[in-house]
Amino acid sequence: MKKTKRYRKRNLLTSPGTLTYIGPDIAVKTKIRRIQYSDKIFRDEPAHSLSDCAPADQTEPVTTWLDVDGIHEISLIEKLGKLYELHPLLLEDVVNTEHKPKLEVYDAGYLFLTLKMLHVQSESPIEISCEHVSFVLGDNYVISFQEELTEDIFKPVLERLQASVGKTRKNGPDYLLFALLDVVVDNYFIVLEKLGDSLDRAEDQVIAGAHDLSLKDLYALKRELSIARRQIWPLRDMLNQLIREDNAQINKEIIPYYRDLYDHVMQVLDTIDSYRELVASLADVHLSTLSNRMNSVMKTLTIFSAVFMPLTFIVGVYGMNFENMPELKWHYGYFYVWGLMAVVTIGMIFYFKSKKWM
Amino acid sequence: MKKTKRYRKRNLLTSPGTLTYIGPDIAVKTKIRRIQYSDKIFRDEPAHSLSDCAPADQTEPVTTWLDVDGIHEISLIEKLGKLYELHPLLLEDVVNTEHKPKLEVYDAGYLFLTLKMLHVQSESPIEISCEHVSFVLGDNYVISFQEELTEDIFKPVLERLQASVGKTRKNGPDYLLFALLDVVVDNYFIVLEKLGDSLDRAEDQVIAGAHDLSLKDLYALKRELSIARRQIWPLRDMLNQLIREDNAQINKEIIPYYRDLYDHVMQVLDTIDSYRELVASLADVHLSTLSNRMNSVMKTLTIFSAVFMPLTFIVGVYGMNFENMPELKWHYGYFYVWGLMAVVTIGMIFYFKSKKWM
Amino acid sequence: MKKTKRYRKRNLLTSPGTLTYIGPDIAVKTKIRRIQYSDKIFRDEPAHSLSDCAPADQTEPVTTWLDVDGIHEISLIEKLGKLYELHPLLLEDVVNTEHKPKLEVYDAGYLFLTLKMLHVQSESPIEISCEHVSFVLGDNYVISFQEELTEDIFKPVLERLQASVGKTRKNGPDYLLFALLDVVVDNYFIVLEKLGDSLDRAEDQVIAGAHDLSLKDLYALKRELSIARRQIWPLRDMLNQLIREDNAQINKEIIPYYRDLYDHVMQVLDTIDSYRELVASLADVHLSTLSNRMNSVMKTLTIFSAVFMPLTFIVGVYGMNFENMPELKWHYGYFYVWGLMAVVTIGMIFYFKSKKWM
Amino acid sequence: MKKTKRYRKRNLLTSPGTLTYIGPDIAVKTKIRRIQYSDKIFRDEPAHSLSDCAPADQTEPVTTWLDVDGIHEISLIEKLGKLYELHPLLLEDVVNTEHKPKLEVYDAGYLFLTLKMLHVQSESPIEISCEHVSFVLGDNYVISFQEELTEDIFKPVLERLQASVGKTRKNGPDYLLFALLDVVVDNYFIVLEKLGDSLDRAEDQVIAGAHDLSLKDLYALKRELSIARRQIWPLRDMLNQLIREDNAQINKEIIPYYRDLYDHVMQVLDTIDSYRELVASLADVHLSTLSNRMNSVMKTLTIFSAVFMPLTFIVGVYGMNFENMPELKWHYGYFYVWGLMAVVTIGMIFYFKSKKWM
Amino acid sequence: MKKTKRYRKRNLLTSPGTLTYIGPDIAVKTKIRRIQYSDKIFRDEPAHSLSDCAPADQTEPVTTWLDVDGIHEISLIEKLGKLYELHPLLLEDVVNTEHKPKLEVYDAGYLFLTLKMLHVQSESPIEISCEHVSFVLGDNYVISFQEELTEDIFKPVLERLQASVGKTRKNGPDYLLFALLDVVVDNYFIVLEKLGDSLDRAEDQVIAGAHDLSLKDLYALKRELSIARRQIWPLRDMLNQLIREDNAQINKEIIPYYRDLYDHVMQVLDTIDSYRELVASLADVHLSTLSNRMNSVMKTLTIFSAVFMPLTFIVGVYGMNFENMPELKWHYGYFYVWGLMAVVTIGMIFYFKSKKWM
Repeated sequence: MKKTKRYRKRNLLTSPGTLTYIGPDIAVKTKIRRIQYSDKIFRDEPAHSLSDCAPADQTEPVTTWLDVDGIHEISLIEKLGKLYELHPLLLEDVVNTEHKPKLEVYDAGYLFLTLKMLHVQSESPIEISCEHVSFVLGDNYVISFQEELTEDIFKPVLERLQASVGKTRKNGPDYLLFALLDVVVDNYFIVLEKLGDSLDRAEDQVIAGAHDLSLKDLYALKRELSIARRQIWPLRDMLNQLIREDNAQINKEIIPYYRDLYDHVMQVLDTIDSYRELVASLADVHLSTLSNRMNSVMKTLTIFSAVFMPLTFIVGVYGMNFENMPELKWHYGYFYVWGLMAVVTIGMIFYFKSKKWM
Repeated sequence: MKKTKRYRKRNLLTSPGTLTYIGPDIAVKTKIRRIQYSDKIFRDEPAHSLSDCAPADQTEPVTTWLDVDGIHEISLIEKLGKLYELHPLLLEDVVNTEHKPKLEVYDAGYLFLTLKMLHVQSESPIEISCEHVSFVLGDNYVISFQEELTEDIFKPVLERLQASVGKTRKNGPDYLLFALLDVVVDNYFIVLEKLGDSLDRAEDQVIAGAHDLSLKDLYALKRELSIARRQIWPLRDMLNQLIREDNAQINKEIIPYYRDLYDHVMQVLDTIDSYRELVASLADVHLSTLSNRMNSVMKTLTIFSAVFMPLTFIVGVYGMNFENMPELKWHYGYFYVWGLMAVVTIGMIFYFKSKKWM
Repeated sequence: MKKTKRYRKRNLLTSPGTLTYIGPDIAVKTKIRRIQYSDKIFRDEPAHSLSDCAPADQTEPVTTWLDVDGIHEISLIEKLGKLYELHPLLLEDVVNTEHKPKLEVYDAGYLFLTLKMLHVQSESPIEISCEHVSFVLGDNYVISFQEELTEDIFKPVLERLQASVGKTRKNGPDYLLFALLDVVVDNYFIVLEKLGDSLDRAEDQVIAGAHDLSLKDLYALKRELSIARRQIWPLRDMLNQLIREDNAQINKEIIPYYRDLYDHVMQVLDTIDSYRELVASLADVHLSTLSNRMNSVMKTLTIFSAVFMPLTFIVGVYGMNFENMPELKWHYGYFYVWGLMAVVTIGMIFYFKSKKWM
Repeated sequence: MKKTKRYRKRNLLTSPGTLTYIGPDIAVKTKIRRIQYSDKIFRDEPAHSLSDCAPADQTEPVTTWLDVDGIHEISLIEKLGKLYELHPLLLEDVVNTEHKPKLEVYDAGYLFLTLKMLHVQSESPIEISCEHVSFVLGDNYVISFQEELTEDIFKPVLERLQASVGKTRKNGPDYLLFALLDVVVDNYFIVLEKLGDSLDRAEDQVIAGAHDLSLKDLYALKRELSIARRQIWPLRDMLNQLIREDNAQINKEIIPYYRDLYDHVMQVLDTIDSYRELVASLADVHLSTLSNRMNSVMKTLTIFSAVFMPLTFIVGVYGMNFENMPELKWHYGYFYVWGLMAVVTIGMIFYFKSKKWM
Repeated sequence: MKKTKRYRKRNLLTSPGTLTYIGPDIAVKTKIRRIQYSDKIFRDEPAHSLSDCAPADQTEPVTTWLDVDGIHEISLIEKLGKLYELHPLLLEDVVNTEHKPKLEVYDAGYLFLTLKMLHVQSESPIEISCEHVSFVLGDNYVISFQEELTEDIFKPVLERLQASVGKTRKNGPDYLLFALLDVVVDNYFIVLEKLGDSLDRAEDQVIAGAHDLSLKDLYALKRELSIARRQIWPLRDMLNQLIREDNAQINKEIIPYYRDLYDHVMQVLDTIDSYRELVASLADVHLSTLSNRMNSVMKTLTIFSAVFMPLTFIVGVYGMNFENMPELKWHYGYFYVWGLMAVVTIGMIFYFKSKKWM
């Protein structure tokens, strides 16, 4: 896939706030799931109508997680937006699959995060695809939006909730958001591992001096690393902002978990940087291998020319047809010439040895 | 067009504040249009005299948009400046088509923005031209100045106003300014798409290993990207300043729209950066393709020399005219020589295969 | 001129504050001119004695401009310094032609600015020379110091004062300083234009693929741009400081003019940066042109070798003197050989066409 | 060892806060040592059960140092964590050998530091391995965690404590932490020295023009330097934070020691940077040596071709079999040809001397 | 001298605060001189015992300057430290010749500065050595420490004090410190001049196209510039800190002198940067000269091959021994062949002229 094609036509020159989905065409219907839980309660039901999507009553102490799988049905997203009283510009960002990761705190009392899930689309040559994922964190709910591209990525969280493993059930929507983000970041490590494998293969080839290693592979790897970096980098600031600022939505006890997440993102970025350096130095080593080979080709050529040119000249001399060429009549002339040529050849070889060309 | 020619002679060494138009010569007369609207009213009339350009009475609750199409008639601009009580240095920036994008807040209670509209002048090789656009945002008016180079770029906004589509009619001049800026930024996306197409073509050529791809095309593309970046980059700070600072001219409810615009500008800049990286890596791949080809040319040359030089030497030997050359008299001497040459050739080929040059 | 020679021996290891002129030796006497003006008054007289240089009485509402043309007469500068009660270290900076541009606010109530006037010394290859210019802005006076290298650069301001054109006469010394700085900055644009012309010529040559274009010219251009940038860059901070801070010497109404100057300096720096980029990409294009030519030279060489080596071998074969060589006796042997050679040649040409070397 | 393999599978997609050891498999049991000391007391005992690890009573004025040697027994680490009431996320960082160096101040009243000890694993080619080391500084205790990879690195501190040399016994846990960090930083100097030796060997080879120096060695050196830098760099900020901020755990009189440590870290980083520069310039010199050699090979080839091609042509001319070739019948024709060839050769040599190719 | 050897073994793994001298071994005894002066008094006496080194009584209004020449006698430095009540870590920095330049303000009421004096050790190739110099500024004393490597570098200050020239005698220890620092900075200019001379020589060689100019010289120059920069750069921050902060030890009237010093340091750094740029562009020009020469060598080779290969082929053809070769019997056949060869040669020359290879 051409990288430049990643960017597709936005709803240009229309009134701002008009929702337009620009991702790939998808035939499947949006799947929505409403999970409600507290320490004791756990309800998980697919939403068939809009009323199934409504947040829990403020009086009931449960956390609602609305897991929206598919963002191509604009009208549905708009209705959900109205139901939860979300700002139209927020919805525009939810469906704009080209939008950069960002965090926005709305005065109305909810947080909005959008970021990219990375998937390894093909392993050799390695190719990464991005999935647009967004979260809204309200007082007692979390809404997660994801493109209907792969299976539900939040399955591990759902299973932990169901099994009541870990601290998720005991905490509110802020911890749930953390758990969901943690899944996304953990996924980065999986992508990193695949990139690392790809890098290892390239390194093996470079060290083996494989002369058919295409630099294109290295450049492709570099490009994928650069894309991954660009998509993950903003997370650093977003999480930092969440940690530093006082957000009504995030409890103070939950902050250390976000700080931990921040450390993981830093580790991912650090690894990407070290991979980038490695790719650069592999390319350098590969180029220097190529240039060494060129040198050795040139030297072989020079040695051949330098040895055979004088010899060919000598035999040419005695191929001349002058009537008066004394050497031609010598009885051992022919053998003297062979001797002369042996001397010339040995001299050349010594000369090249002294120059360290052989 | 030479890029260096973009900069033309300013009014140097004259008294500061003297207006001088330095853009291309234009025969057409400046077209001015005064649009006045509120939720209920909509008046759109071309201005024939200066009095047609006057702002609305403070008592009447309408927003005035003065759309000035052409900035080459200095005296007219000066008169407009006096009518709206604008600072002479502001007018100097309006007509200075070389001026960098900037935002300036005047104490007199109006904002001044100047920026660049980008147009794709030719598609192959891609060439971008800049149009100097300025805005003044007052309490109840917006003045927009544009070079008389292309058709009116603000037509979509005018049409939305006329049709009363979207929120434009319901809001004041701050929202109008946003709508106008949004048109400019949306246009950047259109330019980006053309640049992307151009990049795709170059990528196709590089991957096909087209040996007639001129690096000049890639460098031209890189230059246009660099120009676009330079012209758009200041917008980032300008919009940031509008969002952060308390400006009397911009209503708090309108701020989210400017923040959205800011996001779009960031997206444009981000895409430009990824295009720049892509151009750089295409150039690298292209250069490495060239150097691979050079290597293979060198290898062919070496193989030819190394195979034919010894053979030519051998046939030279038996072309010598010595009287006493026993081999010449052997009955199968000639065929033995062919055998010898076959052995030498096969030996060479094995040697080169072992060196992986063949 | 060697650039490293620009730096000449300072008064090292002497007591600090000792004035030493380190510019080129100059035979001419320092010319001093005292201009005094207010809205109504205008007096312009060359100063013959020190008393002619004294500032105006505080009671008289006039602005004094002391235009000192020549900074090589140390004792004179020292006397002027005492007359206006200037700090000795300030005077040291006035005469130190190597000093970097800087702004310094003295507690005694005056501002000190030193910067560089740029001149184009030779056009091809372009060479820029720097002139050391300093200003002292007091309550009711401006002193300007310039090297006695070129004609008086402040003539345009003087003429405007005389003719009472523009706002200069109506304002105080702060506006005068602005007008003088404006002349310096306007001069940068003139230098830029010459640099741009030089760049255009280089671009023409590169595009024409001129193979005698010396990279040295491009590097020289790059160096001059780098020098210009280094000399102008500090102005950015200096003007910024003037605008931001409350300086007793500069009136609030004059600030917008300084801001305008700041914009111009930014425009100059921006243009220099784009020129630098252009030079870099011209060098890249030139190098790639060279390498293309090298490739085509190599290919020609390879084709010649590859075509003629087998042919020469073949004719060598039939130049051998074996007694028993059946082909030699064939009646059409000679013509068969020509046929063979034609086949070999055509085969080669097809091979190279298939490899796209021809 | 592949560098990319350094990163091994973390406990992905499990509940956050779950401890997982990801370092190499280790068969040895964790060794724990509890040292308790004050000015007068000194107790050093290996801990066999968890109760041996407990901190000293708050009433007893002794400093406890718990030296944990091995972090692969998760359950043990967890129990220690509970004993000292440490945050589970802190323990996660203790056992995560991939974690970046960081400092974290916990509200519960203890500091947490994690950093990397560097070891030289092999000297030629130089290879550095990282050991994950963590410290917890409480009111009256320090806990140090290290991987069970090498011998106990804190032996020098233990010996000083035993011998009551220096200030360690007289001060509290803050000075002990400093002493332990000092050992780590001193170790960096030892690693630096080995890197410097390796660099010296490479420099010797480059200066001797060794044509078998593999650029790979230089790139490997560069990579190790880059790894060392990445691991040490965060220490800078960590120590700075310790110095600047008011930490209840660190006494004001001890701060200068930490400042000294900071200076040492800066010195290490500075040396690494200068080594990196040196490696880069060695690579440049090496490449220019290679390219010089290539030039000289090319020149030799050209001289051979240029000298022998005309000679071979001349002898070829007189090898032709035309019936009517007057020169062949001249008595001294053969010798004239030798003369001609001498003239051509000498002419060539002069030509090349004039071109400075010989 | 190998640059990496500059760093020698520190007292690793010993108790912090233990003084260890790591500079070159020196046989000479430390020379100490105590100068005491006020406006009227001047006493200069070599110190033979520790009591000769004591500071002046607080009651006596004199400034004491203790000039310590040699830092290799650890015990002496320690005794001096006790006499003046200096912090042990300060003394460690005094004798650690590897320590980076830094400024430290001690609570006990004295300032500590350590920096590097630069000397040109050899001129061709240029080599710079660093001398470790430290200063302690107390209420009424300055202590200067220098390595016993060269003659006393502070002689000019001593002479000015003796002769009572300039302002030194009239001011306190803060001005004395300035005067001493000024000597160090003035010395940088002297080193710069030598570096500039070296650069001029290299530039002459590059412009003359000297083909024996070793790139190694340029890289060596670059390295020395980089070392100088690294040693001088921290001075910028140190002086800035002295100017900005309120230091009890430095009088407000003396600040402008320090500001002047700061300007000089900036000028030094600026010149170093421009030298570095120059070295880089010289290397570029040199490389492009080399590559031009390579091109011209290649072209010569190609022309020779292309001209002589067809000629050699032609004469080869008529050297064949076929019985039936009609041309051989033509009366003017031999001369026709010469004509043919002339035509081929001229054709080739035209072809190469058209390709601009000749």
